[in-house]
Amino acid sequence: MKELSQAILNSKKSKIRKLFDMLLQSGPEAISFGIGQTDFTTPAFIYDGIIQALREHKTLYAPALGIPQLRKAIAEKFRNENQLSWIKTENTIVTNGGSQALTLTYAVLSNPGDEMILSSPNFISYYYLADYFHIKCVEVPRQEDYSPNIEMIKEKISSKTKFILINSPNNPTGYVYSESEIKAIVDLVQDHDLYLVSDEVYEKFLYNRAVHISPGSYPGMDERTITLNALSKSFGATGLRCGYIGASLPIIQNMEKYIQYTTAGVNHPVQYGAVRALKQSEKMNFPDIIERYNKKRIFCVKRLRELQFEVVEPQGAFYLMPKLNQAWKMTADEFSEDLVKEQKVACVSGTAFGSFSENSLRISYATTDEKLEEGFNRIEKFLKNRNLI
Amino acid sequence: MKELSQAILNSKKSKIRKLFDMLLQSGPEAISFGIGQTDFTTPAFIYDGIIQALREHKTLYAPALGIPQLRKAIAEKFRNENQLSWIKTENTIVTNGGSQALTLTYAVLSNPGDEMILSSPNFISYYYLADYFHIKCVEVPRQEDYSPNIEMIKEKISSKTKFILINSPNNPTGYVYSESEIKAIVDLVQDHDLYLVSDEVYEKFLYNRAVHISPGSYPGMDERTITLNALSKSFGATGLRCGYIGASLPIIQNMEKYIQYTTAGVNHPVQYGAVRALKQSEKMNFPDIIERYNKKRIFCVKRLRELQFEVVEPQGAFYLMPKLNQAWKMTADEFSEDLVKEQKVACVSGTAFGSFSENSLRISYATTDEKLEEGFNRIEKFLKNRNLI
Repeated sequence: MKELSQAILNSKKSKIRKLFDMLLQSGPEAISFGIGQTDFTTPAFIYDGIIQALREHKTLYAPALGIPQLRKAIAEKFRNENQLSWIKTENTIVTNGGSQALTLTYAVLSNPGDEMILSSPNFISYYYLADYFHIKCVEVPRQEDYSPNIEMIKEKISSKTKFILINSPNNPTGYVYSESEIKAIVDLVQDHDLYLVSDEVYEKFLYNRAVHISPGSYPGMDERTITLNALSKSFGATGLRCGYIGASLPIIQNMEKYIQYTTAGVNHPVQYGAVRALKQSEKMNFPDIIERYNKKRIFCVKRLRELQFEVVEPQGAFYLMPKLNQAWKMTADEFSEDLVKEQKVACVSGTAFGSFSENSLRISYATTDEKLEEGFNRIEKFLKNRNLI
Repeated sequence: MKELSQAILNSKKSKIRKLFDMLLQSGPEAISFGIGQTDFTTPAFIYDGIIQALREHKTLYAPALGIPQLRKAIAEKFRNENQLSWIKTENTIVTNGGSQALTLTYAVLSNPGDEMILSSPNFISYYYLADYFHIKCVEVPRQEDYSPNIEMIKEKISSKTKFILINSPNNPTGYVYSESEIKAIVDLVQDHDLYLVSDEVYEKFLYNRAVHISPGSYPGMDERTITLNALSKSFGATGLRCGYIGASLPIIQNMEKYIQYTTAGVNHPVQYGAVRALKQSEKMNFPDIIERYNKKRIFCVKRLRELQFEVVEPQGAFYLMPKLNQAWKMTADEFSEDLVKEQKVACVSGTAFGSFSENSLRISYATTDEKLEEGFNRIEKFLKNRNLI
């Protein structure tokens, strides 16, 4: 048989999914710190919108760009919550989740041979999409505190660089870009005639005094910024696959063609649920959710330090990325695999998130307090059994 | 600003969608013969499955391959209805509609520079997806009766040819491949170590004694055939975006990776509706639908011949592709645009479907009898106003 796509053959099945498969075999006492979705489910007011749409037979093709009501609600959300004052309805498109928002962005921005710049570690899809679109992903190591290395990003810009991608609050590190870091990246983008892709799906998950800033709100960034978001994380709706993009008209118009020929748009009834999500988001009561998640975050930092991990305290998302104590002389891949086998606790190895993280684990605290407590007790046992602490 | 993707810049917004936009401005008396979806809507037994799933909070991530119950139902469907006896649950994947089934297929089968062979005219996405994946679409003109030109297909096979794509029953011509034509293509595929992509979304729409044959049912074709289908056409559910694929394990495994990183799977609750669709498809009462559509088909053939079009009588799908009478000295683009402007009737120009069809129109008869009658009366007026008949 002739060879299949090299880019896809070379991409691995996600280590996160693999870890889940291992965990599934561990029975009911398994504990996952590997989950990339919240512990709350989609609220009923969103379901109701979908159910009403079904009953009203909204099940034939939606427009490729999305239904007008949803696009209007998205534009309002970007203007009101993200200060993207230039975004009108025509600057939006509805996507099959944040993943397809990314796919459309890579598709429209790039030609084979182009380069993009990314701070590593970062979300896994960013790397594989570069392969699928035949572009080079230039990785820049984050600094020790997981902040972006602006100087090194600048050095890596070449004539082939097409865009810089940022994800703040960040998966997997929990890092939140400061205003001066956002401004520095905006300046680089403008000085070098680049595009800036800003993946903002974790924007609601902020702790202490952390603030989320959308780079598209800076003067002159309307043409250059592609802002990605989704219902998945904020509304506990990963399985609804509903995301969205704000960008300039030429970019949206080309995304329209690509989404039309590759998926023919997005599930029609779910878009009516999404309208309600965006228009009635106060019903989610985010301050309560954040207070709850903040307690989990503080607990994890405390326990990880007690267990002698090196911890950068994260200010956003619902992940921590502790580094293994160097004295343990274990790689993160070994730690992750042995831990799930011996203690039935799943933490994803840092190597699932690009380069420069072979000694880190990603821990998601989007789980119950009981599981967090029990999980850390098992990690403690794991380390004590090996006389590491 | 730096240039966006050349492949996407070069692809046009679908002429079908453009025609719809023109038609929308025509007011309530507009009649569309351009619709690629049935005139019946999704039945309640499918909705019920989705609604129950929502109420049971099935709104977090589904597996990237699809939920196991649906994959099992798909495998049973392929075995029972299409004689694909080799298909097990593991040989299936759920997709965002037939469009993404195609996208996954192009993605996994091809590397840049590869070639594919297609009989033209054909469904528009086939051409643009070739551009998006940087492969060459080698077009072979259909014969006068819209049958495939097997000899010419054979001549066009080169060392770069990766797959042949067929779509029977066909959009836009309504042509249904005969058993001997399927066999001839199967032989070519086996003799030249190719893959065969069989898009079978119109399989239920057959008239007279036409029979649908899945090429994957031939001996030795299990490794080589990718069979695509969707709920869209059979279940009046274009807006649910639920399709599926049957293929060999290596192909499915690579599709899993691609769908995971590009859309993270398919809307979760809709998959429970799809289980019901496939398991209870007898509730659709297809013989009644086909009897109704057959009457529309016969009416259209009669009227087109009265109006002096050249007509190949179609045996499948719900389209006809009449050729303009040469004496009229009009191109299909002119005819289509003038007709919508003057008479508010939309027929898509053949040029929307690849090469070799600049003198043809595509007419969809998936509309009410009243609209068909009125539409043809207006076409008659259009021709008489110009003294063409």
